[in-house]
Amino acid sequence: MKRKLRMGMVGGGIGAFIGPVHRMAATLDGEAELVAGAFSSDPKKSRASGEQLGLAPSRVYADYREMARREAALPEDERIDFATVAIPNAGHYPAVKAFLEAGINVICDKPLAVSLAQAREIERLVKKSGKAFALTHNYTGYPMVKQARQMVLAGDLGRINKVIVEYPQGWMSSFIENPGNAIGMWRTDPKIAGGSCCMGDLGTHAENLARYITGLEIERLCADLARFVESNRLEDDGAVLIRYKGGARGVLLASQICAGEENPLKIRVYGTKRGLEWRQEDPNYLWIKDPAGAVTRLSKGNSNLCEEARNAARLIWGHPDGFIEAFANLYREFFKLVRAERAGEKPPAADVPGVRDGVIGMAFIETVLQSHKSNAKWTKMLK
Amino acid sequence: MKRKLRMGMVGGGIGAFIGPVHRMAATLDGEAELVAGAFSSDPKKSRASGEQLGLAPSRVYADYREMARREAALPEDERIDFATVAIPNAGHYPAVKAFLEAGINVICDKPLAVSLAQAREIERLVKKSGKAFALTHNYTGYPMVKQARQMVLAGDLGRINKVIVEYPQGWMSSFIENPGNAIGMWRTDPKIAGGSCCMGDLGTHAENLARYITGLEIERLCADLARFVESNRLEDDGAVLIRYKGGARGVLLASQICAGEENPLKIRVYGTKRGLEWRQEDPNYLWIKDPAGAVTRLSKGNSNLCEEARNAARLIWGHPDGFIEAFANLYREFFKLVRAERAGEKPPAADVPGVRDGVIGMAFIETVLQSHKSNAKWTKMLK
Amino acid sequence: MKRKLRMGMVGGGIGAFIGPVHRMAATLDGEAELVAGAFSSDPKKSRASGEQLGLAPSRVYADYREMARREAALPEDERIDFATVAIPNAGHYPAVKAFLEAGINVICDKPLAVSLAQAREIERLVKKSGKAFALTHNYTGYPMVKQARQMVLAGDLGRINKVIVEYPQGWMSSFIENPGNAIGMWRTDPKIAGGSCCMGDLGTHAENLARYITGLEIERLCADLARFVESNRLEDDGAVLIRYKGGARGVLLASQICAGEENPLKIRVYGTKRGLEWRQEDPNYLWIKDPAGAVTRLSKGNSNLCEEARNAARLIWGHPDGFIEAFANLYREFFKLVRAERAGEKPPAADVPGVRDGVIGMAFIETVLQSHKSNAKWTKMLK
Amino acid sequence: MKRKLRMGMVGGGIGAFIGPVHRMAATLDGEAELVAGAFSSDPKKSRASGEQLGLAPSRVYADYREMARREAALPEDERIDFATVAIPNAGHYPAVKAFLEAGINVICDKPLAVSLAQAREIERLVKKSGKAFALTHNYTGYPMVKQARQMVLAGDLGRINKVIVEYPQGWMSSFIENPGNAIGMWRTDPKIAGGSCCMGDLGTHAENLARYITGLEIERLCADLARFVESNRLEDDGAVLIRYKGGARGVLLASQICAGEENPLKIRVYGTKRGLEWRQEDPNYLWIKDPAGAVTRLSKGNSNLCEEARNAARLIWGHPDGFIEAFANLYREFFKLVRAERAGEKPPAADVPGVRDGVIGMAFIETVLQSHKSNAKWTKMLK
Repeated sequence: MKRKLRMGMVGGGIGAFIGPVHRMAATLDGEAELVAGAFSSDPKKSRASGEQLGLAPSRVYADYREMARREAALPEDERIDFATVAIPNAGHYPAVKAFLEAGINVICDKPLAVSLAQAREIERLVKKSGKAFALTHNYTGYPMVKQARQMVLAGDLGRINKVIVEYPQGWMSSFIENPGNAIGMWRTDPKIAGGSCCMGDLGTHAENLARYITGLEIERLCADLARFVESNRLEDDGAVLIRYKGGARGVLLASQICAGEENPLKIRVYGTKRGLEWRQEDPNYLWIKDPAGAVTRLSKGNSNLCEEARNAARLIWGHPDGFIEAFANLYREFFKLVRAERAGEKPPAADVPGVRDGVIGMAFIETVLQSHKSNAKWTKMLK
Repeated sequence: MKRKLRMGMVGGGIGAFIGPVHRMAATLDGEAELVAGAFSSDPKKSRASGEQLGLAPSRVYADYREMARREAALPEDERIDFATVAIPNAGHYPAVKAFLEAGINVICDKPLAVSLAQAREIERLVKKSGKAFALTHNYTGYPMVKQARQMVLAGDLGRINKVIVEYPQGWMSSFIENPGNAIGMWRTDPKIAGGSCCMGDLGTHAENLARYITGLEIERLCADLARFVESNRLEDDGAVLIRYKGGARGVLLASQICAGEENPLKIRVYGTKRGLEWRQEDPNYLWIKDPAGAVTRLSKGNSNLCEEARNAARLIWGHPDGFIEAFANLYREFFKLVRAERAGEKPPAADVPGVRDGVIGMAFIETVLQSHKSNAKWTKMLK
Repeated sequence: MKRKLRMGMVGGGIGAFIGPVHRMAATLDGEAELVAGAFSSDPKKSRASGEQLGLAPSRVYADYREMARREAALPEDERIDFATVAIPNAGHYPAVKAFLEAGINVICDKPLAVSLAQAREIERLVKKSGKAFALTHNYTGYPMVKQARQMVLAGDLGRINKVIVEYPQGWMSSFIENPGNAIGMWRTDPKIAGGSCCMGDLGTHAENLARYITGLEIERLCADLARFVESNRLEDDGAVLIRYKGGARGVLLASQICAGEENPLKIRVYGTKRGLEWRQEDPNYLWIKDPAGAVTRLSKGNSNLCEEARNAARLIWGHPDGFIEAFANLYREFFKLVRAERAGEKPPAADVPGVRDGVIGMAFIETVLQSHKSNAKWTKMLK
Repeated sequence: MKRKLRMGMVGGGIGAFIGPVHRMAATLDGEAELVAGAFSSDPKKSRASGEQLGLAPSRVYADYREMARREAALPEDERIDFATVAIPNAGHYPAVKAFLEAGINVICDKPLAVSLAQAREIERLVKKSGKAFALTHNYTGYPMVKQARQMVLAGDLGRINKVIVEYPQGWMSSFIENPGNAIGMWRTDPKIAGGSCCMGDLGTHAENLARYITGLEIERLCADLARFVESNRLEDDGAVLIRYKGGARGVLLASQICAGEENPLKIRVYGTKRGLEWRQEDPNYLWIKDPAGAVTRLSKGNSNLCEEARNAARLIWGHPDGFIEAFANLYREFFKLVRAERAGEKPPAADVPGVRDGVIGMAFIETVLQSHKSNAKWTKMLK
């Protein structure tokens, strides 16, 4: 029996969306338990959240700096093994910094930071610290995404020529005609979200998913962004034309104003031999398209899948795994890194997005912004 | 903060399918923790499972009778609050009996027992004990099943005339041509499974789902069963024609030899005004069929749904809830009953299948068997 | 260049549904032209229809008897080559008889007659006459149905164990609450429709489709019928349990009161090796289900299909063939028989339902009625 | 009874794909009959085709110029009423010119010409001639496309903000690794196809469909094209970012190398109130997406649709209309224009793409090429 890892949370208090996901995902396999947290920038709300979650009052903090400092001061066998950073973007850099410098492993929401410079700084800090670090590009946790990746790697699709990845949400569309309702959304505030709304929130997921599956690196891109919600100070819609290194082409779409869409992240990859398609809203399937006239639907939990996909399925065929289970797969891999770090061992291979993915994501955002500002000029991918 | 309920497991040791589901489902909301178990009829395996799960050795038992006796003897604030019975059918009756008589609440896998007589006896024991009892007809835990039920209740479909519920699995089909591989399946052994394989395993889920959504009671039925897997000593395929009280008609299909099918439990209900369709393999949607030429797909996690469906969704729209989350909804409701019992309060309303559902399920099985044996004669539903 | 065959129509006047389908289907390939007709039992309406269709007044008849007599009296190179009988069931027998006895080939709507006795008499007449005869079980005309049949024949599914065929329409459901609107429907009048409404209209299509694809013959069946529309004097809903010769089991569902359904004829066939599924509302695809965890969708117009499926596709992949094209495939095969008959040659092989299918269809209806009347007793299939 | 219009064909000889579609579509309603043709640039092949089609040898021509001249010289009640131009792009201009100048109505395949200048010249000729002219952007013939258009026009979607239209075929992908097989494809030869392959063949359909449904006009665009098939002298993949007049944004994708795709033209339109989606491979449905959490599928042949959609359906609900029927709807509308022209009447309203659509299509192609050549610079839509 492995001991339960001690989890501390930054953010994710009462009423948060992603906070409970982190808690359910982290504890799903019984590998971790929540013991500490700074759940809100409002100390009262943080305390209330901690109480509701059954934490000892002494482990509920008014802010993450205090949390990092005081946790680090606890005895080795009491202090948190890792901190989950689940707060708006602008807080990522200082929070991650605080924990890394306190010698505490970190798993952080995406995008990594509010600027590429910050992201690079975080990468430097991670390397320097030697601590485990993961980024929650959670969609790579789905079993059939892993199957897609392995099939591309194995050459089943031939050489990849075309990638179409799209993420057209619609939840902001109602604010176009009812601008008053949109007040106070942090994602639309450059001070909190950084330079991008839609591309930061959705585009980076799409970029990460495409890269995870295909391994392709963006050489240059050409972007057009739009803002339809008046009170939004950033973009809420965008499209990016991509040239990958090696000659493949890509199209990446992201939007928050596609009225009536929910969360349809979707990717299609076409090689010289076959195509594939995966859809987040129907995540337990992967479609393989054969030019001879057959589309084969592979499904989660079967023995005909690759090892990575088999291991990532919680349940056998026909018993749907959901968003939480995919998210939990990230934690499961992250925990391998945390346990190694705790044991003073060399970090093992772990199938979880890391700080490099975060830097690339920020580079993607900034390249997109730069291209857009220069009238959709082809812009070399920043590094 | 509610205290964590203490969970004890019977069955669900290393390698089991449904055991981990119980553990993940029971603990998903942080409302319970596993503290005890008799994980296998093999004491060595039980110990190994307990160790792997991080339990204190003193709380890992060689069998459930010992577990019931010794847990009951523990101090009130230490003993388990409820026992999960996740063993093959023949063990349900004695295990449930042992815990109820020890004053411990029980949640039990379906079907309730191996005979209607046993089921009635369990019902008697539950009533006598005053303990909380739930049965894991887990498919009723899905949000969109709850939406379906509420729409029927509200009269949105008009008077219900027709129910088609089907559950055609295929996993046994490979044993038809390779009979050797099927050796040792407990579901096919009447001593362990009871008088039915396919109808007990799948048919009862279908019966329960149809009844949960429509509220209709079977008046009489006419059944044909078949056995295609030679080594199976029970049936692995069946179809049932149903006449419901009040005039509606039904068809219920269940099979284990529909080669290539996974877990496609599906229900269609047709009223005088509208029809509906729900599919377990695509569980976050509900289709409402309007005779005017519009099929509307409602989806989980939206505010246009009924309260029951909204509460049962863990995540907002577009973020798929899966099998585990639906299962966890049963536990969440069961916990209301357990907490009330622990507090000595009257049991509150709880949306979870209970012992009555179990008795009806067994009555269904025995009526089906009786009809089949009498050459598909219309047979009055047993009680 | 083959000369155009001369077509005469019985029924299918202004306002008819299936009449235009016959005309479009028969002429789609430029192999036939309409030259004569008795379009309605109302002579005025027949004349008006003939005029609208551009026929010479001399070839528009007041009734089919006159038409048969006078067409037969025309010179060989002028008279119709075949008659299409597209009138309600009760007219099939006398109309078919009139044309066969006049030496004219016939294609007739299903069901073949209003009784099994009549159907047998038609079979006798067809044999005696030596004329070409076809029955419009049009769903067998779809390319992917032909692919399904060939795959079963080739043994790709292994031995067939289970057939589920369903045809749940909903158009009559609105008459349940608004009985007044249902007045005058010929399908519900035993004098015109024969002894069955739903089974005659839909059940026979389902029976024919299942037999066409699997080749299985019904040994005995057990049926339950229901009537929900008050003004209907026949049944509008039914379910049939089937035992096929050789041991396979079947379930056949047909209904007209499944509110919100359109025309979802669907079949699933399960063998020892694989399953298949075909759906009329999405007709250009065929799903092959592999127990190893892959469902393969084959699509029309590709070179990986069998010859029969390739020939039956009018257009290449991705360009949907529809109902009319499938119907036209029946005519195309029927025309082979007509041309042979005209040339005094032996009838060639033709992939079109014939009089034997019509007799079996009527036997199916009468066996279903008999089983239902005897309380769902297992009833041997009539011959 | 309307008299049958006399049809003459240019192209569409033995072995052609689109030729038979034209013939089936034009004659489906019995409104026209083929009487003349220049079926191939090879006179022998033209004669053989004419013979196979049953034409009088005197009406089968060695080339379209001869055909135009000699048909025009026939008596009024014998000569063709219209010519169908179904030959590769480079022939459109001279053929259309020949017939218009001979006073004969024309329906022509898309794209209209091989250059914008040519297209403008055709427009001038059409206007000058006063003859009927139609362009076969056949996808606008589908009933549910008409429903989409009417719903946008009626404001059901609110103000349109976003259009995503895609047409990713895959048939050329096999030529990437097997370049030898691709020899001789006219679409890839600039002398025959004009300046574009993929955008001319597919992109113009997508552009036309988006404009037909939304009424939006492209203000400027930014395009990236690619060529993956070596022997192709034009592009076989492309993506276009669009800014519409009035502020809406668009993305248009077209490709011929998306391995495993068939003919999935698809459009999504998002307004301030709702979104819609239509897919050519499943053409009888239209999905309306409501931000409140309901996606409604409307289906062809129902009385809840707009008049245009109802009229365009050949068959009632559940009986699939296909590609040919949609194509036939273009002919049906074109025939209104032809009959008016023949009768010397003012052209009536007709719902069929015309010469203006052809000019816009060519402007689209040339603007895309220009943008691509200038490194994806935003380029104002040519006129």
